[in-house]
Amino acid sequence: MSAYARMSAEERRAEYAKVQKTYQELKGLGLQLNMARGKPGKAQLDLVSDIFDLMQRPEDYVSDGIDVRNYGELAGLPAARRLFADILDCRPEQVFVGGCASLQLMYDTVSKAYTHGLLRSPRPWCREETVKWLCPSPGYDRHFKVTESFGFELITIPMTDEGPDMDAVEEAVKDPAVKGMWCVPKYSNPDGIIYSQETIRRIAALRPAAPDFTVMWDNAYCIHEFEGEYVPFPDILSLCAEAGNPDMVVEFASTSKITLPGAGISCFACSEANMAYLEKLLTVQIISFDKVNQQRHVLYLKDKAHTLALMRRHAAIMAPKFRCVADALEREIAPLEIASWRRPTGGYFVSLNAMPGTARRTLALCKEAGVTMTGAGATFPYGKDPQDSNIRIAPSLPPVEELEQAMAVLCTCLKLSALEKLAEG
Amino acid sequence: MSAYARMSAEERRAEYAKVQKTYQELKGLGLQLNMARGKPGKAQLDLVSDIFDLMQRPEDYVSDGIDVRNYGELAGLPAARRLFADILDCRPEQVFVGGCASLQLMYDTVSKAYTHGLLRSPRPWCREETVKWLCPSPGYDRHFKVTESFGFELITIPMTDEGPDMDAVEEAVKDPAVKGMWCVPKYSNPDGIIYSQETIRRIAALRPAAPDFTVMWDNAYCIHEFEGEYVPFPDILSLCAEAGNPDMVVEFASTSKITLPGAGISCFACSEANMAYLEKLLTVQIISFDKVNQQRHVLYLKDKAHTLALMRRHAAIMAPKFRCVADALEREIAPLEIASWRRPTGGYFVSLNAMPGTARRTLALCKEAGVTMTGAGATFPYGKDPQDSNIRIAPSLPPVEELEQAMAVLCTCLKLSALEKLAEG
Repeated sequence: MSAYARMSAEERRAEYAKVQKTYQELKGLGLQLNMARGKPGKAQLDLVSDIFDLMQRPEDYVSDGIDVRNYGELAGLPAARRLFADILDCRPEQVFVGGCASLQLMYDTVSKAYTHGLLRSPRPWCREETVKWLCPSPGYDRHFKVTESFGFELITIPMTDEGPDMDAVEEAVKDPAVKGMWCVPKYSNPDGIIYSQETIRRIAALRPAAPDFTVMWDNAYCIHEFEGEYVPFPDILSLCAEAGNPDMVVEFASTSKITLPGAGISCFACSEANMAYLEKLLTVQIISFDKVNQQRHVLYLKDKAHTLALMRRHAAIMAPKFRCVADALEREIAPLEIASWRRPTGGYFVSLNAMPGTARRTLALCKEAGVTMTGAGATFPYGKDPQDSNIRIAPSLPPVEELEQAMAVLCTCLKLSALEKLAEG
Repeated sequence: MSAYARMSAEERRAEYAKVQKTYQELKGLGLQLNMARGKPGKAQLDLVSDIFDLMQRPEDYVSDGIDVRNYGELAGLPAARRLFADILDCRPEQVFVGGCASLQLMYDTVSKAYTHGLLRSPRPWCREETVKWLCPSPGYDRHFKVTESFGFELITIPMTDEGPDMDAVEEAVKDPAVKGMWCVPKYSNPDGIIYSQETIRRIAALRPAAPDFTVMWDNAYCIHEFEGEYVPFPDILSLCAEAGNPDMVVEFASTSKITLPGAGISCFACSEANMAYLEKLLTVQIISFDKVNQQRHVLYLKDKAHTLALMRRHAAIMAPKFRCVADALEREIAPLEIASWRRPTGGYFVSLNAMPGTARRTLALCKEAGVTMTGAGATFPYGKDPQDSNIRIAPSLPPVEELEQAMAVLCTCLKLSALEKLAEG
């Protein structure tokens, strides 16, 4: 195989006919495969389902003297706060434990900023003329949707190998209408990038014009290595505090990909001043999130060391899937020079940049052949990828055998759309 | 004993000395009792804790072909929607199943009205000059707090034996700034009143000036009889639809007092048009609430008939507590004619009206003697009871022995504060 761009028009026509034949064969298989979302596979769910064996002895219902079955403890069980503090390397008083969805906690934080304002807001954001929001891209579509749904103006910040382009961020925060930024600092969604120490230092040291500028630090993959050892990661709360910005960040995490996506526990972590402010708002909304499930998780996960041991068992399931993706791309696509990608060692995604102008077409072809992928453009604000290039691969759900088929389809569609694009030009 | 009002000043002084002596004795006991909140007691929690024995066979993880452990099903498990529809006598498509707190669903409904507007809103409520809200009072303090926290102007609607004073409601809704009303239609909090058929008919047939006027129908005690048989109750969704107001009501319910207060499941129910609208907003906020806990509840409660059987076992625990309250009041207070109260047959509260101007003093005395009650005024908007008269008694938490002590303290304090008030002249 040689690079498509260096082929003659005739060679490309021949190649197209060949690839088209493969495509038709794959279509004929009547596949129904899904690589759309970062959904754990059944083997991972089965791995942790012994969590349901807990909570059967009367003493399991009591934690620090609290009957976990009854009302109370707005910020969550102290033991659950300690567990997340251990994992995130912050203090238990900085942790609020929620329900099964950190997305809900993020949405609610933005919603409360809009309806009531945050600790340092001069006024609720619904009283602002314009609210602008920084979106390092490619990024997580659900993040972007939250801020879009409140009518904020989304500003794309390019991603680099070290995290968000900090020159762009530092420039953007000079605008007092810029109220915040989304971050997935470890194994970023979808690139799998770990923000560098220097990037994190610059984020913590930002001097935004808006007094209530808020870094939404979604540490979704904080302990989610699938290859190699656990990578220690700095506590953003301390760094912000040291930089004189104690209230500028709210961190989020969950056990959705540690225990169960549909029934885990989540948390946010922030300065104690933020916590006092947010609790005053939250106490109007809820008496507490599900403390029995919090207790179940405390008993099951125990502490960070024990949780990391569990993550190694998840890694044993995840690693072959990511290898399958990487191998297929190396074998099928690399020689053709029609796409680039990273080889992450944690998180849930592989981010692929196809030949500009071919992502949408590639995914339409995939769909036609029964392979559902995250929608084209999803990783950019407003669902619009200016290059029509980024494709997010989520290999966690299908078993390896199915994944191999799905990757065969994806590679074939990448080839077809690249050849079509080259034929145009 | 004779009525305090008919005693001579001298008789009252003698009585005060006697009651004061009793009070000092009670204080000397160093009690620490709580009748502040509608918190189920330990016996009720133990009654249902076999719910934790479920979810241990692989087939329990699958419901209607859905793996309940994974992401998905925004509106909840179909089986959980069917369960609530059975209990509320509506259709499963009208039900959205949430987490452990119906309060959260109520808050979020108001919050979404504020940030985005409801189905029939001309604009989000944050863009309205003024939003006014009807609060039948005495009512539930947490309801009032939600609407107060969004800056709505709370309008007190008197409660009658049949529910909210509908003449006052029909008059009030002529104001287009009036956007909604709180209702606890069955065993109202705190009066324990069941809205009459005529009241419910008039609510369903309201013709509010605001196109997005919303009845928040908190059916918190829909199957919560503790005395006598289950009282059938009309489906408000059908009644509103029949009256040409299909989208005017959102109903709420939960299993907080059926299974566990800290770990139940909740729902809202509304027209399918409302559901389609709200789901579009909710999908930005959450992927789904905890479906494992939904499945646990489906397996445990099965259906309405089976749930009603469980409620009879709760009733066996609750009834003696309410009898204890009623008996103490009948014995100690009735002859003195210093307070009035109802004798509810369901719900979680006894609402007592003390001599005007004495509620606050009574509760302060209680507190001094180690008995915590719901704060004075809590059952009125802004926490201000214009009569300083209403006291909410929540007898569910303490065991009967403790409750007897707590009622002895309350009765003593009612006497002291009445005598003090009468001495003022």
